[in-house]
Amino acid sequence: MLAGELAVDYPTVKLDTNALVAARLLASERLPGLVVLDDNGEPRTVLPAFQVLRFVVPAYIQADRGLARVVDAKYIGQMCATLADKQVGDLLPAKRTRPLVVHADDTAMEIAQLMEQEHSPVVAVVDGDGRMLGAITLTQLLDRILPG
Amino acid sequence: MLAGELAVDYPTVKLDTNALVAARLLASERLPGLVVLDDNGEPRTVLPAFQVLRFVVPAYIQADRGLARVVDAKYIGQMCATLADKQVGDLLPAKRTRPLVVHADDTAMEIAQLMEQEHSPVVAVVDGDGRMLGAITLTQLLDRILPG
Repeated sequence: MLAGELAVDYPTVKLDTNALVAARLLASERLPGLVVLDDNGEPRTVLPAFQVLRFVVPAYIQADRGLARVVDAKYIGQMCATLADKQVGDLLPAKRTRPLVVHADDTAMEIAQLMEQEHSPVVAVVDGDGRMLGAITLTQLLDRILPG
Repeated sequence: MLAGELAVDYPTVKLDTNALVAARLLASERLPGLVVLDDNGEPRTVLPAFQVLRFVVPAYIQADRGLARVVDAKYIGQMCATLADKQVGDLLPAKRTRPLVVHADDTAMEIAQLMEQEHSPVVAVVDGDGRMLGAITLTQLLDRILPG
């Protein structure tokens, strides 16, 4: 079972896509992440849904459960609204070491290893010219490899 | 917006549920995690889909991308099959510091803070007696709190 057989159509965004637009796409489609295209239109990385959450919960609340309880109910809406002033590139994690891309002839274990190492719930699949064929999510991969 | 209003019906497993059965449920329903009930039938924690992946990719391959390429194609099937000899309790991460449970009157920010701190894509919602009302996923939460 190779990546080319596992790839399915998947939504993409660009580095300069508005962060709120991207977040709404993730949320409404219940996606674990979005594939991010570079300036050449080739898939490069993934914006995980968790990264959006990180901007909704400010650092001083991440570390203090008590503060989460006392902030005004409007506050989370205000945090969400700040996404409108950001781009997808502003939300990406800094620590990626590898592109979140596999080639059509990569194996299921190579896909699983990349997801595991980079803790990404989605990877893009490209052909020999770097063109995107689709993407594979963690649960789609498990669905294909688990014994029935 | 309180947890009780956000909760939706959600599948659960027990600590002694067969790990392969749980993994197939995650995979076929495309769930980010499963709510795990304790021996009293009350929600306690969550089995994230990523934990299943950790058992599919053995430690010596997690650290070595080259090995992922050379293992035989049957190998990933063998790793998946070992789940049949495990229970959900065997797959849970060791490092949780808080139960992945919120109360019906907890706020959206408290839910977001718990998901962020414990890096869990799902939390269970309970009433005052500890009975499960449902669960909230990360993308469902984002869908409700993001401005339209």
